[in-house]
Amino acid sequence: MSQVISIIKIGGNVIDDEQALHSFLVKFHSISGPKILVHGGGKLASRMADRLGIETRMVDGRRITDDQTIDIVTMTYAGLLNKHIVAQLTALGCTAMGMCGADGNAIPAHLRPKQPIDFGWVGDVNPAELNTVLISTLLNAGVTPVFCAITHDGEGHLLNTNADSVATALAQACSGMGQTRLVFCLEKNGVLLDIDDPSSLISHINAESFERLRAEGVINKGMLPKIEGALKAVQGGVGEVVIKHADNLLLPIGTTIRN
Amino acid sequence: MSQVISIIKIGGNVIDDEQALHSFLVKFHSISGPKILVHGGGKLASRMADRLGIETRMVDGRRITDDQTIDIVTMTYAGLLNKHIVAQLTALGCTAMGMCGADGNAIPAHLRPKQPIDFGWVGDVNPAELNTVLISTLLNAGVTPVFCAITHDGEGHLLNTNADSVATALAQACSGMGQTRLVFCLEKNGVLLDIDDPSSLISHINAESFERLRAEGVINKGMLPKIEGALKAVQGGVGEVVIKHADNLLLPIGTTIRN
Repeated sequence: MSQVISIIKIGGNVIDDEQALHSFLVKFHSISGPKILVHGGGKLASRMADRLGIETRMVDGRRITDDQTIDIVTMTYAGLLNKHIVAQLTALGCTAMGMCGADGNAIPAHLRPKQPIDFGWVGDVNPAELNTVLISTLLNAGVTPVFCAITHDGEGHLLNTNADSVATALAQACSGMGQTRLVFCLEKNGVLLDIDDPSSLISHINAESFERLRAEGVINKGMLPKIEGALKAVQGGVGEVVIKHADNLLLPIGTTIRN
Repeated sequence: MSQVISIIKIGGNVIDDEQALHSFLVKFHSISGPKILVHGGGKLASRMADRLGIETRMVDGRRITDDQTIDIVTMTYAGLLNKHIVAQLTALGCTAMGMCGADGNAIPAHLRPKQPIDFGWVGDVNPAELNTVLISTLLNAGVTPVFCAITHDGEGHLLNTNADSVATALAQACSGMGQTRLVFCLEKNGVLLDIDDPSSLISHINAESFERLRAEGVINKGMLPKIEGALKAVQGGVGEVVIKHADNLLLPIGTTIRN
């Protein structure tokens, strides 16, 4: 493809706020060229579990996904949330196609090993096995895939999957079709030198500056695996990874990670 | 397309029984040529509404779909049920793509008028507006669309829709691409001369014999709109409509309606 392919991931801060979501979708629709949206689940699954009297158990920020919980996340992520987004995008004139990883065998994954922690029906993507033919057929047909972070094991089981990993795998798969740009929308403007100073945005990171920033403790905690994943993605063929606030989707404000 | 396109609809008697569903999907997968599956919702939505303490209200066998209920049917039909079917089909080697009518703007519909009964978020399909380009692209790519009976109004609202109507509209849309065959799987072998005698199956019905069978009272109640709809479909270009038991999907046992 001659145009840049954009893969954009949104999380709870956008999904859980009806107005923020609508405002984001309007911006997303205005991005020209082929694009893919990946959404996390936000708080909906936990709220639904609460209403159904099912205990939500998290370890290291990841949901323990037992038999009842995989049904809940499938209902809320692949059903309610995904179709709600698709209907809104279609209303804007975007030919959006809501998908999970089982649809068209788009994103094969495998059950996470039960040691050291048994997370239940949680999967890790098999990045080399994505159905690039299907994804390319859809993009060439002017369709915008909208993925929730449910994948499958190829044996009939749905798997709860990390949405960042789904977005990264999709960006890498698309990098074989043309130049790709992977955007993670956060509640922050990007990576900040001083977490309390929004104006201290670091506009560019590469492998070299990352090592320095990590040694200085500027990049730590949750941002560490994000930047490591981004660097792996650009090393794997993705043109660039951008971390930015959803409000700034169309603005040149954010942290760009390049090789 | 040179091969016959099969559009097959299943309802509660298959969906609500895990074993019957699996056995059906194995048979469905073995049908050669392009095909589309349409599934109703079964009892799952009512069970979920019960668990959430939301009253299920039905008028003339149709669900009154208020704000909470459209969320429940979207979760259960487009989420849990649809993705469960897709994961199973994919495990069988079928490239299944789970969709609702909002996906790819495949099935536009309109809100049913609020008079004489306000059914809430219930829609009727706009048969002339189906996205045949997308459906044909998917079928040509070897993808098997799996539709739940949720459509949309093009303004961002999802609509609970009759699954028979969705299947009929899809068959009519596909009849522009090649010869189509629409199959309704019921809990009976087809239309019976004597409802208490399974061997009294009527193998063929056309417009002429329908008038006679209706006058004789053989076709009545729920079967009446089904056969009327089937006759309309064949008059509208569908090659044939077959009413049969899901167990007999691959067997020549059933009632065939032709022009």
